[in-house]
Amino acid sequence: MSVKIPFDTLKETTKEAFLHLGLPEEKAELCAQIHCESSADGVESHGMNRIPRFAEYVQKGWIDVHADPELIGRRGAAENYDGHLGIGITNAVFCADRAAELAKEHGIGIVALRNSTHWMRGGTYAWRIAYKDLIGISWIATESCMPMWGSDESSVGNNPFCIAIPREKGPIVVDMAMSQYAYGKLGVYRLAGRQLPYPGGFDKEGNLTTDPGAIEDSRRILPTGYWKGSSLAIALDMAAAMIANGRSGADLDEEGRGSCTGCSQIFIAIDPYMFGDRDALQAMVDHRVEAADSAHPIDPKHPVRCPGESTVARRKKSMAEGVNVDEQVWAQVQALAAGDLNVTDIASK
Amino acid sequence: MSVKIPFDTLKETTKEAFLHLGLPEEKAELCAQIHCESSADGVESHGMNRIPRFAEYVQKGWIDVHADPELIGRRGAAENYDGHLGIGITNAVFCADRAAELAKEHGIGIVALRNSTHWMRGGTYAWRIAYKDLIGISWIATESCMPMWGSDESSVGNNPFCIAIPREKGPIVVDMAMSQYAYGKLGVYRLAGRQLPYPGGFDKEGNLTTDPGAIEDSRRILPTGYWKGSSLAIALDMAAAMIANGRSGADLDEEGRGSCTGCSQIFIAIDPYMFGDRDALQAMVDHRVEAADSAHPIDPKHPVRCPGESTVARRKKSMAEGVNVDEQVWAQVQALAAGDLNVTDIASK
Repeated sequence: MSVKIPFDTLKETTKEAFLHLGLPEEKAELCAQIHCESSADGVESHGMNRIPRFAEYVQKGWIDVHADPELIGRRGAAENYDGHLGIGITNAVFCADRAAELAKEHGIGIVALRNSTHWMRGGTYAWRIAYKDLIGISWIATESCMPMWGSDESSVGNNPFCIAIPREKGPIVVDMAMSQYAYGKLGVYRLAGRQLPYPGGFDKEGNLTTDPGAIEDSRRILPTGYWKGSSLAIALDMAAAMIANGRSGADLDEEGRGSCTGCSQIFIAIDPYMFGDRDALQAMVDHRVEAADSAHPIDPKHPVRCPGESTVARRKKSMAEGVNVDEQVWAQVQALAAGDLNVTDIASK
Repeated sequence: MSVKIPFDTLKETTKEAFLHLGLPEEKAELCAQIHCESSADGVESHGMNRIPRFAEYVQKGWIDVHADPELIGRRGAAENYDGHLGIGITNAVFCADRAAELAKEHGIGIVALRNSTHWMRGGTYAWRIAYKDLIGISWIATESCMPMWGSDESSVGNNPFCIAIPREKGPIVVDMAMSQYAYGKLGVYRLAGRQLPYPGGFDKEGNLTTDPGAIEDSRRILPTGYWKGSSLAIALDMAAAMIANGRSGADLDEEGRGSCTGCSQIFIAIDPYMFGDRDALQAMVDHRVEAADSAHPIDPKHPVRCPGESTVARRKKSMAEGVNVDEQVWAQVQALAAGDLNVTDIASK
């Protein structure tokens, strides 16, 4: 069951929870904003639902709430930071903002972050860069959670790749994990007693299946587009680890700390108006969106939408009507805010 | 039926064909090299098989074999070129090489090309950048050939995205179109009387199918990973068109010239050793590849391979044993080389 909470209330309570966890004021404010925005956008799995697990990690000392990114290398339009196992969100926001500043100066900017922690919703940073009127691209090398194509053993991360296009009417944003479905999504379907709309993995006998429980049992989640998602995931892994001079997914697997602890992330920003007139390019993009959206729909009740459009609509609705939050999660966040730090991660159970 | 032709013979004959088509010496040499390499790597569809269509386009005046890319903008680590409808390969090679030079100088370089023509095998340029010991990324905005997710009408390009990691033992390279299968591949399966290994599109009744002919009839080819490939394709389209100040896929659709005529392309190169020791990073990447490749295989006869590894092996074999070329295509290229310019595009029929 979920409840609808006004955004400001949600954010205030969440910030209070983070303050009780020991986050400095400014970090508590930023993390509260972003967790609440993710839920407002409909990405509850990496918004409010993640707070109990974050609280656990902070208390276990797996995340250092006082660490800040440290500049360890700079060359032209590129910078390298060590995240010192600080908060994934604040580290990543800092690096996304630096990439944007570099792009304003050089046309393109790249920031490579090593030794960070879970950045929660991957798309946050590409969205953020797009709201600065730049194209944003980001990706991560995570620990393994998906078999490489041809294997039945978890051997590569689902390494989300994000790209965002700035647009006055609302950015166009892809936030794409390299598995067809997240494990969180499988759980949602299983609990609802539903089959997946398309095959999401293999069962223990090696058959493609839409049965979420069978995939949870086999741990053989399907890469996006079969061999394609597997290939892109492993290449993104290597690229992130090389550029950041950080850990690959294999390194994370060997360390075994889990949940992106120590991971490498890439943030790229590109000025889309370097070579063209801003108004003309915005008109071109609007025209492109309109052409795509006017493609003949299979079901007239579900017109085609470019990625990100429905997110913008969803956020507007959440801001007007309140943000959907799981009842238990909300109770936990309220407990944290009241100073009771005894929470356990419900969402991943 | 295909024949095996020694690489040098193939290249010499292909170059002669290009000279007869009016290509200047240097361009004929480069294009012959790349078409033959693509076939040697097993990508015949965009290697030798494309030569008859290329010949048709040159003769129709759709490709200007004398045009060169013109610098129309420069800012920091970024450059913008107009391809003037020159040869797709030579335009793209020039821009990939410029991106590499910019990366050597700035750490990262981006070149945005507008108004170009079909670049043949998309991966060519990422491979090329990787062989310069840089990470290469490239993509394109093509005309529509695939329905947007939720539509039954062709409304977005399959816009290949390519990423290549430099590695002494052979680059790791993803060359990934945003459709699960190319139409060329459907034709290969249909002619062989085979079903696709996984659903490749919808039939006219809207059912997912592995029947290649049914998909050719409906023109409802499946995006890679369902909604995901559709989303990434449209975002890449907008990004390329904006940065290059060029045409989007919608613009190409409206002009109706087809086969990427007038398209926008992006080339990014990144120095992976900016912040780390080269030997250590190469060892890290080797370790990552070994960890992935040693994942437990479903079929012990088919061990896991990272993308690009089998291509390197395939090229070695082709160089030693000759390159596989379709008999009819080879006859046509020989005819072109002998000065008979009356060829028709077999491969796409």
